[in-house]
Amino acid sequence: MVDSDIKNRQRIAVIGGSKATAEILEMAKECGRLIAKNNAILVTGGLGGVMEAASMGAKEAGGLTVGVLPGRDKDRANKYIDFAILTGLGEIRNALVIMNADSVIAIDGSYGTLNEISHALISKKPLFAVKSWHIAQGEGERKRGELIHCETVEEAVKKAVLAGTKDG
Amino acid sequence: MVDSDIKNRQRIAVIGGSKATAEILEMAKECGRLIAKNNAILVTGGLGGVMEAASMGAKEAGGLTVGVLPGRDKDRANKYIDFAILTGLGEIRNALVIMNADSVIAIDGSYGTLNEISHALISKKPLFAVKSWHIAQGEGERKRGELIHCETVEEAVKKAVLAGTKDG
Amino acid sequence: MVDSDIKNRQRIAVIGGSKATAEILEMAKECGRLIAKNNAILVTGGLGGVMEAASMGAKEAGGLTVGVLPGRDKDRANKYIDFAILTGLGEIRNALVIMNADSVIAIDGSYGTLNEISHALISKKPLFAVKSWHIAQGEGERKRGELIHCETVEEAVKKAVLAGTKDG
Amino acid sequence: MVDSDIKNRQRIAVIGGSKATAEILEMAKECGRLIAKNNAILVTGGLGGVMEAASMGAKEAGGLTVGVLPGRDKDRANKYIDFAILTGLGEIRNALVIMNADSVIAIDGSYGTLNEISHALISKKPLFAVKSWHIAQGEGERKRGELIHCETVEEAVKKAVLAGTKDG
Repeated sequence: MVDSDIKNRQRIAVIGGSKATAEILEMAKECGRLIAKNNAILVTGGLGGVMEAASMGAKEAGGLTVGVLPGRDKDRANKYIDFAILTGLGEIRNALVIMNADSVIAIDGSYGTLNEISHALISKKPLFAVKSWHIAQGEGERKRGELIHCETVEEAVKKAVLAGTKDG
Repeated sequence: MVDSDIKNRQRIAVIGGSKATAEILEMAKECGRLIAKNNAILVTGGLGGVMEAASMGAKEAGGLTVGVLPGRDKDRANKYIDFAILTGLGEIRNALVIMNADSVIAIDGSYGTLNEISHALISKKPLFAVKSWHIAQGEGERKRGELIHCETVEEAVKKAVLAGTKDG
Repeated sequence: MVDSDIKNRQRIAVIGGSKATAEILEMAKECGRLIAKNNAILVTGGLGGVMEAASMGAKEAGGLTVGVLPGRDKDRANKYIDFAILTGLGEIRNALVIMNADSVIAIDGSYGTLNEISHALISKKPLFAVKSWHIAQGEGERKRGELIHCETVEEAVKKAVLAGTKDG
Repeated sequence: MVDSDIKNRQRIAVIGGSKATAEILEMAKECGRLIAKNNAILVTGGLGGVMEAASMGAKEAGGLTVGVLPGRDKDRANKYIDFAILTGLGEIRNALVIMNADSVIAIDGSYGTLNEISHALISKKPLFAVKSWHIAQGEGERKRGELIHCETVEEAVKKAVLAGTKDG
């Protein structure tokens, strides 16, 4: 895998909490593995929990991992991050995680993940969710359809890769 | 009302869409009016729709209005904004709308409003919603309680003012 | 002075270091006083040193002071700030100090002030300097003319007010 | 050159204008070539002029190039950028160019380059300049020493690589 290859590879973001159950972490790791197997670059927030598990999975499958960090210290990235992007923006960096992905997969997650979901919706990025946030506007009758719930990470990655291919 | 008074007044953000129905706009205007009557500074995103209606209401009641704009042009603020804060950050400025408020009232709204709601939740600001987003994590069993749904803007303003007083 | 007046007042930024000699602080205070006397709003970075001295001067003359803070805590503003704008952007907030001013006066200062000077030059804001940075490109033969050096703060304020009037 | 190698490579930023003379562009290209030969990752603002010439040089020497773009559109990167980092921050992204480099080389340049120089000085990054800005504070007697002027790009790259090695 040579550097010049980097330019044309899809970028898929995996978003989720820095704290998660063993079951969720296992799903995140499998998700990262599948993204790497599909030759896509994994983009995360670069920290622990779901971000770290996904990056671990991607590295095990020989993938490339990018972490968009809230701070200015490369050493704060989890050890599976190949390229740490420093921002100094705090959680405002969530917007840049989404901006730097062609499609987005949410796994579980708390308010930071909800924040990233909203950025994906604002910027109309293909967005897939596994065991993550459900959102409904008003009294429920105007449910938004752009957040696609998936049963498994396999389904989510398959759809994310496909969505990226269509865009390209 | 003198300038030196500005420092100690509560700041309440009203968040909502740049497009809304007449009913929603009327609610937003009433919300702004009540905020001003409570001697609080109204903070919004400075543009149209709910932001403009709330600002209009606040000005009719003699209040002070602040608009945190996405761009760099003061003239893009709606005409009811007393002090336009320019950011050049695009919708990333949503984070600054919330950061500059002691409490937050969401009225209706689309993905930008969801984004601001998530920022309020991340930063643990008192957050009240009228006819706005409903959110639930996972399979619904872990509903988050920090987004308090209100029946009316009167209820929301009353609770927001009270929350701010407790903080102070 | 009523709130509705805020909208149409000029905004003049005073930029300078958080550490300065007594002589520089006295100049900054006089600068703030003159800005307030000219009915302009004083914009600073909201912290100590030149920022605080200018704000003190402005308040003594009955002016209105705005501080664009690097962090998220209003209490970090110096005590002469009427309206603290929170950003969470660290020193990146320097860009917002300049963005929210019609004209800029630099007094002394270190690298942060140089950073703000460069933002003023990029955005073509009228920029006046008293005992501050001298800059020259290349081997000196292409000196940039947009940074106008002044002998006194009186001269700087007079020119800044005039520049704002022409723009308006 | 495998992906896992990316993590440990030095990152050197080349900053300079989007417009430059043929002589300057040739220097920038040589600078990029030397950075790649030293196995360092080239970081630039991703656009034209000096940024593009340096990236072209780096690619000719088999290097890896990163571009920190002001906007949100990957296609705005020059064609020699391997990995485009999107920010949506406008020229505020200059801060991120510097944040993501271990050391910085300025070649020529206008106010944007001065802005990046100031960020490098604020964050105490090793900073080398070839035919770029000269800065002096006050009446010249307190010249700042942290901006090291070099005669050639060879000298600048050699010193930048060495500075990065010492840091590591």
